[in-house]
Amino acid sequence: MSWWNVYRTNVNMAFKDINPDIDTERKGCNFDVEKLTHVLDGGADNTHIRRKVEGVLKQDLLTNLEELYFMNREERYLRTIRNVVYIKKKMEEMNWAEDGPESEYVFRAVKGEFGFPLHNGVFIPCINALGTDAQIAKWIPLSKSYQIIGSYAQTEMGHGTYLRGLETTAVYDASTQEFVINMPTVSAMKWWPGDMGRSATHAVVFAQLYTQGKCHGMHPFIVQIRSLEDHSPLPGVMVGDIGPKMAFEQVDNGYLMLSDVRIPKENMLSRYSKVSDDGMYRKRGSERMNYFTMVMVRVNVVATEVIPSLLKACTIAIRYSVIRRQSELKPGEKEAKILDYQTQQKKLLPQLATGYAAHFLSVGLKTFANQVYMQIKTKGDFSSLPELHALTTGLKAFITDSCIAGVEECRKACGGHGYSVLSGLPSLSTRTSASCTYEGENTVMFLQTARFLFKCLAAAQSGQSLPPSVAYLSESDIKSRTVSKKNVLNPDTYVETYRHRACRLIKEAASMLQSQIQSGVEQYVAWNNSSVKLVQAAEGHCYYITVKTFVEALEQLRHEPEIHRIVKQLCDLYALHGILSHTGDFLYDGFVTKEQMDQINQSYLELLALLRKEAVPLVDAFDYADEQLASAIGCYDGQAYSRLLEWAKKSPDNPKVKETFKQYLNSLFVSPVSKL
Amino acid sequence: MSWWNVYRTNVNMAFKDINPDIDTERKGCNFDVEKLTHVLDGGADNTHIRRKVEGVLKQDLLTNLEELYFMNREERYLRTIRNVVYIKKKMEEMNWAEDGPESEYVFRAVKGEFGFPLHNGVFIPCINALGTDAQIAKWIPLSKSYQIIGSYAQTEMGHGTYLRGLETTAVYDASTQEFVINMPTVSAMKWWPGDMGRSATHAVVFAQLYTQGKCHGMHPFIVQIRSLEDHSPLPGVMVGDIGPKMAFEQVDNGYLMLSDVRIPKENMLSRYSKVSDDGMYRKRGSERMNYFTMVMVRVNVVATEVIPSLLKACTIAIRYSVIRRQSELKPGEKEAKILDYQTQQKKLLPQLATGYAAHFLSVGLKTFANQVYMQIKTKGDFSSLPELHALTTGLKAFITDSCIAGVEECRKACGGHGYSVLSGLPSLSTRTSASCTYEGENTVMFLQTARFLFKCLAAAQSGQSLPPSVAYLSESDIKSRTVSKKNVLNPDTYVETYRHRACRLIKEAASMLQSQIQSGVEQYVAWNNSSVKLVQAAEGHCYYITVKTFVEALEQLRHEPEIHRIVKQLCDLYALHGILSHTGDFLYDGFVTKEQMDQINQSYLELLALLRKEAVPLVDAFDYADEQLASAIGCYDGQAYSRLLEWAKKSPDNPKVKETFKQYLNSLFVSPVSKL
Repeated sequence: MSWWNVYRTNVNMAFKDINPDIDTERKGCNFDVEKLTHVLDGGADNTHIRRKVEGVLKQDLLTNLEELYFMNREERYLRTIRNVVYIKKKMEEMNWAEDGPESEYVFRAVKGEFGFPLHNGVFIPCINALGTDAQIAKWIPLSKSYQIIGSYAQTEMGHGTYLRGLETTAVYDASTQEFVINMPTVSAMKWWPGDMGRSATHAVVFAQLYTQGKCHGMHPFIVQIRSLEDHSPLPGVMVGDIGPKMAFEQVDNGYLMLSDVRIPKENMLSRYSKVSDDGMYRKRGSERMNYFTMVMVRVNVVATEVIPSLLKACTIAIRYSVIRRQSELKPGEKEAKILDYQTQQKKLLPQLATGYAAHFLSVGLKTFANQVYMQIKTKGDFSSLPELHALTTGLKAFITDSCIAGVEECRKACGGHGYSVLSGLPSLSTRTSASCTYEGENTVMFLQTARFLFKCLAAAQSGQSLPPSVAYLSESDIKSRTVSKKNVLNPDTYVETYRHRACRLIKEAASMLQSQIQSGVEQYVAWNNSSVKLVQAAEGHCYYITVKTFVEALEQLRHEPEIHRIVKQLCDLYALHGILSHTGDFLYDGFVTKEQMDQINQSYLELLALLRKEAVPLVDAFDYADEQLASAIGCYDGQAYSRLLEWAKKSPDNPKVKETFKQYLNSLFVSPVSKL
Repeated sequence: MSWWNVYRTNVNMAFKDINPDIDTERKGCNFDVEKLTHVLDGGADNTHIRRKVEGVLKQDLLTNLEELYFMNREERYLRTIRNVVYIKKKMEEMNWAEDGPESEYVFRAVKGEFGFPLHNGVFIPCINALGTDAQIAKWIPLSKSYQIIGSYAQTEMGHGTYLRGLETTAVYDASTQEFVINMPTVSAMKWWPGDMGRSATHAVVFAQLYTQGKCHGMHPFIVQIRSLEDHSPLPGVMVGDIGPKMAFEQVDNGYLMLSDVRIPKENMLSRYSKVSDDGMYRKRGSERMNYFTMVMVRVNVVATEVIPSLLKACTIAIRYSVIRRQSELKPGEKEAKILDYQTQQKKLLPQLATGYAAHFLSVGLKTFANQVYMQIKTKGDFSSLPELHALTTGLKAFITDSCIAGVEECRKACGGHGYSVLSGLPSLSTRTSASCTYEGENTVMFLQTARFLFKCLAAAQSGQSLPPSVAYLSESDIKSRTVSKKNVLNPDTYVETYRHRACRLIKEAASMLQSQIQSGVEQYVAWNNSSVKLVQAAEGHCYYITVKTFVEALEQLRHEPEIHRIVKQLCDLYALHGILSHTGDFLYDGFVTKEQMDQINQSYLELLALLRKEAVPLVDAFDYADEQLASAIGCYDGQAYSRLLEWAKKSPDNPKVKETFKQYLNSLFVSPVSKL
């Protein structure tokens, strides 16, 4: 029995009784699943630590897999707070350091059901980044011990992406050495901040700073909003929960209205700017490091929240598709596993390939971000920051779009049971869906990347050298290799194909913009008139980067031939799927011909048939325990139907039926219409 | 003041105070919105009746727009039952006949929050269709007076689309003149039937009929499942609610397990087949009429549930996009309305065009279905039924796919507020999303259409004439017209372009299939190996039919030039958007050239700018009252922000905060880890 199987036996709940239909899938596997897990974890040591953390937390925290599905918002919210306190105590008990290797895996282990996400994830880092040493010394210990709970109040009801449009004001009153904070309109109210609805006692509030009658733009202020005695709102503060959302029931996103709320002068976070007693404003130091913080938040949220949702959805949908049988494929035989249908393979396997692509991309981004961080830290060299910023904006949009579409495709591919909350898929889908908006609206992100690409294109045309990820913009046009049966699965060929498209789209968008400006259209109008095209160009760039990064990751696996083989098939499928989803872009200028496209299509269908055979081991390798999937139809043992029944019986909507229904119905019939 | 405005003033809630940003949009309108509403309603008389119904029901039924968003499943469920009883009484009071013109509008007025949907929508029609006269006389009066509540139990836990795979059995026992019903496995349990979880006292259960040791296939049986005294399950019956779903909180989808449940012989619905006392089985009459019933259910659910969701989502998203302002478009000016951004226009306006396309298609399908019904009824002529069946399967899949994607695109285009349940968009999206599965899984539907297309192609090749909708398969290849600036917006040109693509895809799929079979691959394997292509072919056919139907509807508007003008723009946008979303399909064989595609793209962007100007009146024309939209951000008055705040304050999650939170948090910190 392999290490893998020993682990499985210990960790998974109902392992004893494996559905034979899923068992067969594992027996036919031609690669070592455990090795692939190590690759995904970035090494066997990480796998070991991760499983240790999951094992420890499982004992106390994870009881019934399905319990969250039957809780209301109140219960979900309280559960996350229990979790966060528990984790804090447990980490102390286990001697796991806050920045130690174990802490990285805690979030995954509790499925993101983690209380005070803004307090821990944004409020504290924000004070650390924007506060002076004295401010850090005052506020961080209070926060870490949960004596205060902080939120982060930037987004307003009427203002999101465009920060200069924020309406909240902080006017300095030199006579009292205070700032007076106001939200003059409904649209100026802070809206959406997490932890605000119920938890927060304090918030970092972003406001337009006015001193000596002059506006100095947006600045951060620490404002106490609720009493530390009885948690009631302080005078001038209107605060509450914004109501239900599409998912994230457990988070108390809130609203905040401040009317003439006075805070002491020292509550302005002043690492980068200072107001003197008489109201003189001055900046100090460089705020460039803030960009880096924002970049890292994006990289992390994609890595820990968005991509895992796609990996989980693939796990559930693919496992279900080998135990679900439907219709005769071969006349007279038993109904076929639905994954044996080409149409089902075409729905799911490209999502699986996307999951792997996104994973490797995310690892690549993290590596690059760490390099940039070291450059800044050791040499004060910020030169790679614009490239990192542009990469992460575009790729944030690109990956989240892919994952949103992928999760929902997986959900729909499971038919009716995929619509049942108990499958785990609806919550994955509705939760992922938020990621097109949070941490930067995707269209805005793509347009920022487009702006960077244009700058680079202009730089290239004036002979300057370009950062590595965009260096291709300065290369002369690439000639098409002939796509043939032999090289359609050659990574060099398809990377080149994507590069060509990206280059063409960017240059066309640039010339579209240029020709309008030359014909006298104002710059801002021309930009808007070209923006659909600009988004396409940025997407083309992101697609190229993603395929290229996947191929580079593949190269690293040469020493493990069996892993290399299977990952290459995924990489090929990802690349070909992207071409076939945008055939027009490649046929347009003849870079790919009709006959080559036919060849690509044929190879694609062959890949689907190949990967179908190892699809279950490929999702097993993600190594999500049943507790993390919380899916009646996607558990490791493949016992979908009996688990659906078991869970449905626990539904709180069940016990209340019986007589009450008849009484209610009868009462309605005797009531007059007007009383109904 | 126009009739329209008078109506608006009376019907809409907060009409007095109109957001000036939305007001401007209406003032600039160049067509008569009221006239367009009449077109959509199929005549001014219908509009009049509809508004009358909405006005009457509004008085009693619709109180707070947002109330449903704060109810739990129990409350939602009870509310629908109140509604259905109220409607029954009100219709009697108002003397509205059950099959009268008013009844058609009742569902729309209550936003589909209608109790006992299966009882009224399927159980009763099913008995009427499949029961003998004696059975109808016995069961229908009991059902209509709600003395019994019926469900429709066909789908099983492990079996959906493929009816022959159903496992439930009904074995005839001649000694007692009873059927013995059994579900031998968990996967044989009935799963998903609406009204089953809590309401139903009876169900039409589909089971494999066995008499004299022989299986005669699936037949319907009326089975009592709960006591008429105290509503508790009868012996041998396990019944309950299947738990939460992605939406449809108000529906009690249920499960049902029958173990040796005996029902009298006369409970088998016997219009088309009969079992004699000694167990002799015989069929009688033709069941073809059943196909027609199934077709009509599909047509109706798309028309009343799916398309309206897209129209509502467009209404909400477009209204919000003219009051939401974001970023400077022109430097130094006020932040721009987000609908002024080309990228936002590109997200929303094609969905609006799709809404109109789907509406006209749905009207066309209904008209055709009525013709077929008359042919059957008056002449016993079933010859058009296969065409109608093929059309409705493919188009069911095609329209639901379009509407699902469209609603979600609208939701995402509203950013954070579109993620708030209070916007009304999440429930529209999650509810619509179910339609890819119910009433026939979409991939299966497309493949059924493909099968029909192949039969027609073969018939054409052997010289037979084809039904009108597929007649193009017998035409010789169409030569491409040159797409130029002049004719890119010529409906003949784009209808031809779509027809060419459909024809090509169908023929290619046929030859793919054929060449495999000729090379010795078994028929069923070849079919599966071609199924991705087959689905594309069926989609191509549906796209062509939809564009053609839109153009035909447009022709009917020639006598109203201003309406014709604006609807033509929508039709053009729909057609061009489809081409640009599948450029590869048109470039592939050079039917559209690179230069023509550029021209199409340019015209497309021009259309976006044109339609943007009249977007608000175009959604106003759908004439959804605020009560039906139930959206904080999409009401007629454009007061999104103040309404969001007003509703959020009512959230039941708000009052409970205060001290309890601090107490809870403190209690956690003093508890030992193991007790958390």
